Amino acid sequence: MNALDRLITLFSKLPGIGKKSAGRIAYYILDSNPVLAGTLAKELTGLHQAIRRCTVCGGFTETDPCSVCADTSRDHSLICVIESAQDMRIIEDAREFPGVYHVLGGLIAPLEGISPANLSIDKLISRLGKGNVKELILALNPTVEGDTTALYLQKTLKDFPVEITRLASGMPVGGNIEYIDKLTLSRSFRGRVKV
Amino acid sequence: MNALDRLITLFSKLPGIGKKSAGRIAYYILDSNPVLAGTLAKELTGLHQAIRRCTVCGGFTETDPCSVCADTSRDHSLICVIESAQDMRIIEDAREFPGVYHVLGGLIAPLEGISPANLSIDKLISRLGKGNVKELILALNPTVEGDTTALYLQKTLKDFPVEITRLASGMPVGGNIEYIDKLTLSRSFRGRVKV
Repeated sequence: MNALDRLITLFSKLPGIGKKSAGRIAYYILDSNPVLAGTLAKELTGLHQAIRRCTVCGGFTETDPCSVCADTSRDHSLICVIESAQDMRIIEDAREFPGVYHVLGGLIAPLEGISPANLSIDKLISRLGKGNVKELILALNPTVEGDTTALYLQKTLKDFPVEITRLASGMPVGGNIEYIDKLTLSRSFRGRVKV
Repeated sequence: MNALDRLITLFSKLPGIGKKSAGRIAYYILDSNPVLAGTLAKELTGLHQAIRRCTVCGGFTETDPCSVCADTSRDHSLICVIESAQDMRIIEDAREFPGVYHVLGGLIAPLEGISPANLSIDKLISRLGKGNVKELILALNPTVEGDTTALYLQKTLKDFPVEITRLASGMPVGGNIEYIDKLTLSRSFRGRVKV
């Protein structure tokens, strides 16, 4: 296998990139100024040294604790529980949430061998143990795994004096009743709000 | 901008990768064993040193001339003219073509400032000048640019004793007449073959 084939194989292992896209990307890089390949290589080399896990929330950060956990202007009594560090970026981009985060590192999925012990739940409990936390928002995907994990957390944390909420599930903004699936429609009905 | 943001920005510049996919890929690499980032970095660093242009056909290769041009069992009287080096890979994968290639390095596109002088046409003429070439297959996209380039080559090369053909254009295998566009359908009629 030559250098180009090796690069294509590597790219095709990345999420969302098939064999054809991997080929297009590799040829694009080869066709471009070598500076592009060099810069990419440099960033990839330094990535794991530059970015680590925040010891408080588990998000990716260059400083520890991360800028969100270190920000005293944020509401530290409000913790948003998320599946992965990437979700933090997405929620931050929406500029809606004034609190801090807790990254679980996955969702309970017995079939994939992911049990509660694999998630960062102990750490969440120790954060709650310090008091001061008033509300836990479970921002987990409305899927079987997300629902299971939410239920598990609800049971496990029931003795803490903390309110546990979950993100509203229903029709996406701009969605069309005609095309919405039955489960989502049924959730939209159950979660209906007063106007 | 931190290391993660820089990597996401770089990825989002690659073809077919949007801002969201770039984020997913960067987080995937960060979540994976650092070996993945290291291997990718290594391949990217060595890419432009390992892969160069074949001085005969213009394709990407580790050796010069490339394995196709150096292969004496191939039909060197049959040259397939292609837009980019990547097309060579795609045609080779189909294992249909027994001849050799010539990479133009683009298609004539006046609006984008690509004139015949920007393409590797002189080199093609000098290859034809050596004689021995019986047929030139223009494997160019059936687009305005592809048609223009094919027409230009046909006119420019009309004095050479070489047959110039073009890939058949028509309905893709597995296609449906109902969903095919008018132009393709019209080409399918004009290019109809005896059964």
